[in-house]
Amino acid sequence: MKQGLFVSFEGPEGAGKTTIIDMLIEDLKKEGFQAISTREPGGIEIAEQIREVILNKNNTAMDARTEALLYAAARRQHLVEKVKPALEAGNVLLCDRFIDSSLAYQGFARGLGIDEVLSINQFAIEDMMPRVTFYFDLDPKIGLERIHKNDGREVNRLDLEKIEFHQKVREGYLIVADRYPERIVKIDASRPLQQVFDEAKGKLKQILIPTP
Amino acid sequence: MKQGLFVSFEGPEGAGKTTIIDMLIEDLKKEGFQAISTREPGGIEIAEQIREVILNKNNTAMDARTEALLYAAARRQHLVEKVKPALEAGNVLLCDRFIDSSLAYQGFARGLGIDEVLSINQFAIEDMMPRVTFYFDLDPKIGLERIHKNDGREVNRLDLEKIEFHQKVREGYLIVADRYPERIVKIDASRPLQQVFDEAKGKLKQILIPTP
Repeated sequence: MKQGLFVSFEGPEGAGKTTIIDMLIEDLKKEGFQAISTREPGGIEIAEQIREVILNKNNTAMDARTEALLYAAARRQHLVEKVKPALEAGNVLLCDRFIDSSLAYQGFARGLGIDEVLSINQFAIEDMMPRVTFYFDLDPKIGLERIHKNDGREVNRLDLEKIEFHQKVREGYLIVADRYPERIVKIDASRPLQQVFDEAKGKLKQILIPTP
Repeated sequence: MKQGLFVSFEGPEGAGKTTIIDMLIEDLKKEGFQAISTREPGGIEIAEQIREVILNKNNTAMDARTEALLYAAARRQHLVEKVKPALEAGNVLLCDRFIDSSLAYQGFARGLGIDEVLSINQFAIEDMMPRVTFYFDLDPKIGLERIHKNDGREVNRLDLEKIEFHQKVREGYLIVADRYPERIVKIDASRPLQQVFDEAKGKLKQILIPTP
Protein backbone atom coordinates (compact mmCIF):
# COMPACT_ATOMS: atom_id res chain seq x y z
CA MET A 1 0.00 0.00 0.00
CA LYS A 2 1.15 3.50 -0.85
CA GLN A 3 1.75 5.46 2.31
CA GLY A 4 2.68 9.10 2.75
CA LEU A 5 4.83 10.79 5.34
CA PHE A 6 3.30 12.48 8.36
CA VAL A 7 5.30 15.48 9.64
CA SER A 8 4.24 17.90 12.36
CA PHE A 9 5.59 21.35 13.27
CA GLU A 10 5.61 22.73 16.79
CA GLY A 11 6.74 25.86 18.59
CA PRO A 12 5.49 29.28 19.66
CA GLU A 13 3.89 31.98 17.54
CA GLY A 14 6.58 34.04 15.82
CA ALA A 15 8.86 31.03 15.29
CA GLY A 16 8.11 30.99 11.56
CA LYS A 17 6.23 27.67 11.40
CA THR A 18 3.62 28.77 8.87
CA THR A 19 6.09 30.49 6.54
CA ILE A 20 8.48 27.56 6.59
CA ILE A 21 5.70 25.05 5.98
CA ASP A 22 4.71 27.05 2.89
CA MET A 23 8.33 27.15 1.69
CA LEU A 24 8.73 23.41 2.25
CA ILE A 25 5.54 22.58 0.35
CA GLU A 26 6.74 24.64 -2.62
CA ASP A 27 10.15 23.00 -2.49
CA LEU A 28 8.75 19.47 -2.17
CA LYS A 29 6.42 19.99 -5.12
CA LYS A 30 9.30 21.29 -7.24
CA GLU A 31 11.16 18.08 -6.52
CA GLY A 32 8.19 15.99 -7.61
CA PHE A 33 6.68 15.02 -4.25
CA GLN A 34 2.95 15.13 -3.60
CA ALA A 35 2.82 17.46 -0.62
CA ILE A 36 0.06 19.25 1.27
CA SER A 37 -0.22 21.16 4.52
CA THR A 38 -2.97 21.30 7.11
CA ARG A 39 -3.69 22.57 10.59
CA GLU A 40 -6.49 21.66 13.00
CA PRO A 41 -9.47 22.00 12.61
CA GLY A 42 -8.61 22.12 8.90
CA GLY A 43 -12.05 22.88 7.50
CA ILE A 44 -13.49 19.64 8.89
CA GLU A 45 -17.08 20.55 9.74
CA ILE A 46 -17.33 18.58 13.00
CA ALA A 47 -13.91 19.79 14.17
CA GLU A 48 -14.94 23.38 13.33
CA GLN A 49 -18.08 22.98 15.46
CA ILE A 50 -15.98 21.70 18.36
CA ARG A 51 -13.56 24.61 17.90
CA GLU A 52 -16.50 27.02 18.10
CA VAL A 53 -17.41 25.63 21.52
CA ILE A 54 -13.78 26.01 22.67
CA LEU A 55 -13.43 29.58 21.39
CA ASN A 56 -16.94 30.84 22.28
CA LYS A 57 -16.28 33.94 24.40
CA ASN A 58 -19.35 33.30 26.54
CA ASN A 59 -17.94 29.99 27.74
CA THR A 60 -15.97 31.55 30.60
CA ALA A 61 -16.93 28.64 32.87
CA MET A 62 -15.03 26.16 30.72
CA ASP A 63 -12.87 23.86 32.79
CA ALA A 64 -9.31 23.10 31.60
CA ARG A 65 -10.05 19.37 31.38
CA THR A 66 -13.19 19.98 29.34
CA GLU A 67 -11.08 22.07 26.98
CA ALA A 68 -8.38 19.39 26.70
CA LEU A 69 -11.02 16.74 25.88
CA LEU A 70 -12.55 19.02 23.24
CA TYR A 71 -9.15 19.60 21.61
CA ALA A 72 -8.60 15.84 21.56
CA ALA A 73 -12.04 15.32 20.00
CA ALA A 74 -11.39 17.91 17.26
CA ARG A 75 -7.95 16.33 16.67
CA ARG A 76 -9.51 12.90 16.26
CA GLN A 77 -12.00 14.08 13.66
CA HIS A 78 -9.38 16.06 11.70
CA LEU A 79 -7.16 12.98 11.77
CA VAL A 80 -9.88 10.66 10.48
CA GLU A 81 -11.25 12.97 7.81
CA LYS A 82 -8.11 14.74 6.62
CA VAL A 83 -4.78 13.32 7.85
CA LYS A 84 -5.46 9.62 7.23
CA PRO A 85 -6.90 10.06 3.70
CA ALA A 86 -4.00 12.38 2.74
CA LEU A 87 -1.44 9.83 3.94
CA GLU A 88 -3.25 6.94 2.28
CA ALA A 89 -3.10 8.94 -0.97
CA GLY A 90 0.67 9.01 -0.58
CA ASN A 91 1.14 12.66 0.35
CA VAL A 92 3.88 14.23 2.39
CA LEU A 93 1.61 15.89 4.93
CA LEU A 94 2.93 18.87 6.88
CA CYS A 95 0.73 19.55 9.92
CA ASP A 96 0.97 22.89 11.74
CA ARG A 97 0.72 21.80 15.41
CA PHE A 98 -0.40 18.36 16.60
CA ILE A 99 -0.26 16.32 19.81
CA ASP A 100 2.83 18.06 21.29
CA SER A 101 0.99 21.39 21.43
CA SER A 102 -1.52 19.80 23.80
CA LEU A 103 1.27 18.26 25.88
CA ALA A 104 3.16 21.57 26.19
CA TYR A 105 0.23 24.00 26.55
CA GLN A 106 -2.36 22.02 28.47
CA GLY A 107 -0.29 19.22 29.93
CA PHE A 108 2.59 21.32 31.21
CA ALA A 109 1.79 25.06 31.09
CA ARG A 110 -1.82 24.68 32.32
CA GLY A 111 -0.70 22.04 34.81
CA LEU A 112 -2.98 19.16 33.81
CA GLY A 113 -0.01 16.82 33.56
CA ILE A 114 1.84 15.71 30.43
CA ASP A 115 1.03 12.03 30.99
CA GLU A 116 -2.64 12.66 31.56
CA VAL A 117 -3.02 14.82 28.45
CA LEU A 118 -0.96 12.26 26.52
CA SER A 119 -3.37 9.53 27.58
CA ILE A 120 -6.52 11.19 26.18
CA ASN A 121 -4.63 12.12 23.02
CA GLN A 122 -3.45 8.55 22.53
CA PHE A 123 -7.09 7.54 22.67
CA ALA A 124 -7.74 10.19 19.99
CA ILE A 125 -4.94 9.35 17.58
CA GLU A 126 -4.32 5.66 18.31
CA ASP A 127 -0.99 4.87 16.67
CA MET A 128 -1.05 7.70 14.13
CA MET A 129 1.94 9.61 15.45
CA PRO A 130 3.96 11.83 13.11
CA ARG A 131 7.02 10.11 11.70
CA VAL A 132 8.99 13.27 12.51
CA THR A 133 8.22 16.49 14.38
CA PHE A 134 10.12 19.73 13.90
CA TYR A 135 10.12 21.72 17.10
CA PHE A 136 11.09 25.35 16.45
CA ASP A 137 12.66 26.36 19.73
CA LEU A 138 12.56 30.08 20.49
CA ASP A 139 12.67 32.39 23.49
CA PRO A 140 9.06 33.64 23.62
CA LYS A 141 10.34 37.21 24.03
CA ILE A 142 11.89 37.01 20.57
CA GLY A 143 8.68 35.54 19.16
CA LEU A 144 6.68 38.36 20.69
CA GLU A 145 9.02 41.02 19.33
CA ARG A 146 8.77 39.51 15.86
CA ILE A 147 4.97 39.49 15.99
CA HIS A 148 4.92 43.13 17.14
CA LYS A 149 7.39 44.17 14.46
CA ASN A 150 4.78 43.00 11.97
CA ASP A 151 1.80 44.75 13.56
CA GLY A 152 3.70 47.87 14.63
CA ARG A 153 2.47 47.69 18.24
CA GLU A 154 4.74 47.93 21.27
CA VAL A 155 5.13 45.13 23.81
CA ASN A 156 2.84 45.91 26.79
CA ARG A 157 2.20 44.63 30.33
CA LEU A 158 -0.33 42.04 29.19
CA ASP A 159 2.15 40.70 26.68
CA LEU A 160 4.71 40.33 29.44
CA GLU A 161 2.23 38.41 31.58
CA LYS A 162 1.67 36.18 28.61
CA ILE A 163 5.40 35.68 28.39
CA GLU A 164 5.49 33.91 31.73
CA PHE A 165 2.92 31.48 30.40
CA HIS A 166 4.84 31.03 27.16
CA GLN A 167 8.05 30.43 29.08
CA LYS A 168 6.22 27.53 30.70
CA VAL A 169 5.04 26.34 27.30
CA ARG A 170 8.66 26.34 26.12
CA GLU A 171 9.71 24.41 29.21
CA GLY A 172 6.95 21.92 28.42
CA TYR A 173 8.11 21.55 24.81
CA LEU A 174 11.68 20.93 25.94
CA ILE A 175 10.53 18.18 28.33
CA VAL A 176 8.49 16.57 25.56
CA ALA A 177 11.41 16.86 23.10
CA ASP A 178 13.69 15.11 25.61
CA ARG A 179 11.13 12.36 25.93
CA TYR A 180 10.88 11.60 22.23
CA PRO A 181 14.39 12.19 20.86
CA GLU A 182 13.81 9.68 18.05
CA ARG A 183 10.81 11.63 16.75
CA ILE A 184 11.31 15.28 17.68
CA VAL A 185 13.98 17.33 15.89
CA LYS A 186 14.75 20.50 17.82
CA ILE A 187 15.62 23.44 15.58
CA ASP A 188 17.01 26.75 16.85
CA ALA A 189 14.43 29.21 15.49
CA SER A 190 16.19 32.35 16.75
CA ARG A 191 18.30 32.35 13.56
CA PRO A 192 17.29 33.97 10.25
CA LEU A 193 14.39 32.27 8.47
CA GLN A 194 16.50 30.98 5.58
CA GLN A 195 18.81 29.09 7.97
CA VAL A 196 15.87 27.56 9.81
CA PHE A 197 14.32 26.56 6.49
CA ASP A 198 17.57 25.01 5.23
CA GLU A 199 17.92 22.90 8.36
CA ALA A 200 14.29 21.70 8.27
CA LYS A 201 14.56 20.99 4.53
CA GLY A 202 17.80 19.04 4.99
CA LYS A 203 16.36 16.87 7.76
CA LEU A 204 13.18 16.24 5.79
CA LYS A 205 15.16 15.21 2.69
CA GLN A 206 17.20 12.75 4.78
CA ILE A 207 13.93 11.01 5.62
CA LEU A 208 12.42 11.20 2.14
CA ILE A 209 15.58 10.25 0.24
CA PRO A 210 17.80 8.33 2.67
CA THR A 211 21.45 8.37 1.68
CA PRO A 212 22.91 4.86 1.61
CA MET B 1 -16.65 19.93 55.47
CA LYS B 2 -20.24 18.99 54.71
CA GLN B 3 -20.32 16.45 51.93
CA GLY B 4 -23.30 14.93 50.14
CA LEU B 5 -23.77 11.49 48.64
CA PHE B 6 -23.22 10.85 44.94
CA VAL B 7 -25.44 8.09 43.52
CA SER B 8 -25.74 7.09 39.86
CA PHE B 9 -28.36 5.02 38.07
CA GLU B 10 -27.64 2.85 35.07
CA GLY B 11 -29.50 0.50 32.77
CA PRO B 12 -31.45 0.42 29.51
CA GLU B 13 -34.43 2.55 28.52
CA GLY B 14 -37.61 1.02 29.89
CA ALA B 15 -35.94 -0.15 33.11
CA GLY B 16 -37.74 2.53 35.13
CA LYS B 17 -34.69 4.63 36.10
CA THR B 18 -36.35 8.03 35.72
CA THR B 19 -39.53 7.04 37.57
CA ILE B 20 -37.64 5.45 40.42
CA ILE B 21 -35.29 8.43 40.75
CA ASP B 22 -38.37 10.67 41.08
CA MET B 23 -39.88 8.36 43.70
CA LEU B 24 -36.61 8.24 45.65
CA ILE B 25 -36.24 12.02 45.63
CA GLU B 26 -39.76 12.38 47.02
CA ASP B 27 -39.11 9.73 49.65
CA LEU B 28 -35.74 11.21 50.68
CA LYS B 29 -37.23 14.68 51.06
CA LYS B 30 -40.04 13.30 53.19
CA GLU B 31 -37.44 11.85 55.49
CA GLY B 32 -35.66 15.17 55.80
CA PHE B 33 -32.76 14.70 53.41
CA GLN B 34 -31.66 17.39 50.96
CA ALA B 35 -31.96 15.51 47.69
CA ILE B 36 -31.82 16.48 44.02
CA SER B 37 -31.59 14.65 40.73
CA THR B 38 -29.73 15.45 37.55
CA ARG B 39 -28.76 13.94 34.22
CA GLU B 40 -26.13 15.03 31.71
CA PRO B 41 -25.95 17.64 30.22
CA GLY B 42 -28.22 18.98 32.97
CA GLY B 43 -28.83 22.46 31.63
CA ILE B 44 -25.11 23.33 31.77
CA GLU B 45 -24.62 25.69 28.82
CA ILE B 46 -21.22 24.35 27.69
CA ALA B 47 -22.35 20.74 28.08
CA GLU B 48 -25.50 21.54 26.07
CA GLN B 49 -23.36 23.00 23.27
CA ILE B 50 -21.24 19.84 23.23
CA ARG B 51 -24.39 17.71 23.19
CA GLU B 52 -25.63 19.67 20.17
CA VAL B 53 -22.48 18.71 18.26
CA ILE B 54 -22.97 15.04 19.23
CA LEU B 55 -26.65 14.97 18.26
CA ASN B 56 -26.45 17.18 15.12
CA LYS B 57 -28.01 15.02 12.41
CA ASN B 58 -25.68 16.44 9.75
CA ASN B 59 -22.66 15.07 11.57
CA THR B 60 -22.85 11.65 9.93
CA ALA B 61 -19.05 11.56 9.57
CA MET B 62 -18.57 11.58 13.33
CA ASP B 63 -16.05 8.96 14.43
CA ALA B 64 -16.85 6.82 17.49
CA ARG B 65 -13.74 8.08 19.33
CA THR B 66 -14.64 11.71 18.63
CA GLU B 67 -18.07 10.98 20.10
CA ALA B 68 -16.59 9.30 23.20
CA LEU B 69 -14.28 12.28 23.80
CA LEU B 70 -17.22 14.70 23.42
CA TYR B 71 -19.29 12.73 25.93
CA ALA B 72 -16.36 12.81 28.35
CA ALA B 73 -16.01 16.59 27.83
CA ALA B 74 -19.72 17.20 28.49
CA ARG B 75 -19.50 14.93 31.56
CA ARG B 76 -16.56 16.93 32.91
CA GLN B 77 -18.35 20.24 32.59
CA HIS B 78 -21.58 18.90 34.14
CA LEU B 79 -19.51 17.47 36.98
CA VAL B 80 -17.71 20.75 37.66
CA GLU B 81 -20.71 23.03 37.36
CA LYS B 82 -23.48 20.85 38.81
CA VAL B 83 -22.40 17.64 40.55
CA LYS B 84 -19.56 19.07 42.66
CA PRO B 85 -21.48 22.13 43.92
CA ALA B 86 -24.52 19.97 44.78
CA LEU B 87 -22.36 17.55 46.77
CA GLU B 88 -20.48 20.37 48.48
CA ALA B 89 -23.86 21.76 49.54
CA GLY B 90 -24.55 18.44 51.25
CA ASN B 91 -27.14 17.02 48.86
CA VAL B 92 -27.95 13.43 48.12
CA LEU B 93 -27.46 13.67 44.36
CA LEU B 94 -29.15 11.07 42.15
CA CYS B 95 -27.62 11.10 38.68
CA ASP B 96 -29.43 9.44 35.78
CA ARG B 97 -26.54 7.75 33.89
CA PHE B 98 -22.86 8.50 34.45
CA ILE B 99 -19.52 6.88 33.60
CA ASP B 100 -20.83 3.29 33.32
CA SER B 101 -23.08 4.26 30.40
CA SER B 102 -19.96 5.23 28.43
CA LEU B 103 -18.22 2.01 29.43
CA ALA B 104 -21.18 -0.19 28.40
CA TYR B 105 -22.34 1.67 25.26
CA GLN B 106 -19.13 3.01 23.77
CA GLY B 107 -16.50 0.90 25.46
CA PHE B 108 -18.18 -2.48 25.01
CA ALA B 109 -21.13 -2.28 22.59
CA ARG B 110 -19.38 0.06 20.10
CA GLY B 111 -16.15 -1.87 20.55
CA LEU B 112 -13.81 0.96 21.63
CA GLY B 113 -12.67 -1.02 24.65
CA ILE B 114 -13.84 -0.65 28.26
CA ASP B 115 -10.34 0.22 29.51
CA GLU B 116 -9.75 2.85 26.85
CA VAL B 117 -13.09 4.58 27.44
CA LEU B 118 -12.47 4.30 31.19
CA SER B 119 -9.15 6.07 30.76
CA ILE B 120 -10.57 9.20 29.08
CA ASN B 121 -13.41 9.28 31.58
CA GLN B 122 -11.01 9.08 34.50
CA PHE B 123 -9.30 12.14 33.05
CA ALA B 124 -12.75 13.79 32.95
CA ILE B 125 -13.96 12.94 36.45
CA GLU B 126 -10.67 12.53 38.37
CA ASP B 127 -11.62 10.82 41.62
CA MET B 128 -15.29 11.88 41.64
CA MET B 129 -16.81 8.42 41.29
CA PRO B 130 -20.33 7.76 42.62
CA ARG B 131 -20.32 6.28 46.09
CA VAL B 132 -22.91 3.77 44.86
CA THR B 133 -24.39 2.92 41.46
CA PHE B 134 -27.71 1.17 40.96
CA TYR B 135 -27.64 -0.88 37.80
CA PHE B 136 -31.15 -1.82 36.70
CA ASP B 137 -30.61 -5.07 34.87
CA LEU B 138 -33.24 -5.92 32.25
CA ASP B 139 -33.54 -8.02 29.12
CA PRO B 140 -33.71 -5.29 26.42
CA LYS B 141 -36.70 -7.07 24.84
CA ILE B 142 -38.71 -6.40 27.98
CA GLY B 143 -37.53 -2.77 28.02
CA LEU B 144 -38.59 -2.36 24.41
CA GLU B 145 -42.02 -3.91 25.02
CA ARG B 146 -42.57 -1.57 27.96
CA ILE B 147 -41.66 1.48 25.88
CA HIS B 148 -43.98 0.38 23.08
CA LYS B 149 -46.81 -0.31 25.49
CA ASN B 150 -46.58 3.38 26.36
CA ASP B 151 -46.49 4.72 22.78
CA GLY B 152 -48.91 2.11 21.36
CA ARG B 153 -46.58 1.11 18.50
CA GLU B 154 -45.68 -2.48 17.65
CA VAL B 155 -42.12 -3.80 17.79
CA ASN B 156 -40.67 -3.71 14.24
CA ARG B 157 -37.61 -4.98 12.34
CA LEU B 158 -35.54 -1.91 13.18
CA ASP B 159 -36.33 -2.34 16.86
CA LEU B 160 -35.11 -5.92 16.66
CA GLU B 161 -31.84 -4.81 15.06
CA LYS B 162 -31.51 -2.38 17.89
CA ILE B 163 -32.05 -5.23 20.30
CA GLU B 164 -28.83 -6.92 19.19
CA PHE B 165 -27.00 -3.71 20.04
CA HIS B 166 -28.78 -3.43 23.38
CA GLN B 167 -27.96 -7.05 24.19
CA LYS B 168 -24.34 -6.04 23.79
CA VAL B 169 -24.90 -3.01 26.02
CA ARG B 170 -26.33 -5.32 28.67
CA GLU B 171 -23.34 -7.65 28.33
CA GLY B 172 -21.11 -4.59 28.77
CA TYR B 173 -22.97 -3.48 31.89
CA LEU B 174 -22.64 -6.96 33.41
CA ILE B 175 -18.87 -6.96 32.80
CA VAL B 176 -18.58 -3.52 34.40
CA ALA B 177 -20.75 -4.59 37.35
CA ASP B 178 -18.50 -7.61 37.91
CA ARG B 179 -15.51 -5.31 37.88
CA TYR B 180 -16.80 -2.92 40.55
CA PRO B 181 -18.78 -5.15 42.95
CA GLU B 182 -18.08 -2.75 45.83
CA ARG B 183 -19.71 0.15 43.98
CA ILE B 184 -22.33 -1.28 41.63
CA VAL B 185 -25.53 -2.76 43.05
CA LYS B 186 -27.29 -4.92 40.45
CA ILE B 187 -31.06 -4.80 40.71
CA ASP B 188 -33.41 -7.10 38.79
CA ALA B 189 -35.58 -4.57 36.94
CA SER B 190 -37.86 -7.14 35.31
CA ARG B 191 -40.00 -7.11 38.47
CA PRO B 192 -42.88 -4.69 39.16
CA LEU B 193 -41.78 -1.08 39.71
CA GLN B 194 -42.71 -1.05 43.39
CA GLN B 195 -40.43 -3.99 44.13
CA VAL B 196 -37.55 -2.39 42.25
CA PHE B 197 -38.16 0.86 44.13
CA ASP B 198 -38.27 -0.89 47.51
CA GLU B 199 -34.96 -2.63 46.87
CA ALA B 200 -33.23 0.58 45.68
CA LYS B 201 -34.68 2.52 48.61
CA GLY B 202 -33.58 -0.13 51.11
CA LYS B 203 -30.00 -0.18 49.77
CA LEU B 204 -29.83 3.62 49.71
CA LYS B 205 -31.06 3.86 53.32
CA GLN B 206 -28.41 1.38 54.43
CA ILE B 207 -25.81 3.84 53.14
CA LEU B 208 -27.48 6.99 54.47
CA ILE B 209 -28.42 5.56 57.87
CA PRO B 210 -26.03 2.68 58.55
CA THR B 211 -27.38 0.23 61.10
CA PRO B 212 -24.84 -0.43 63.82
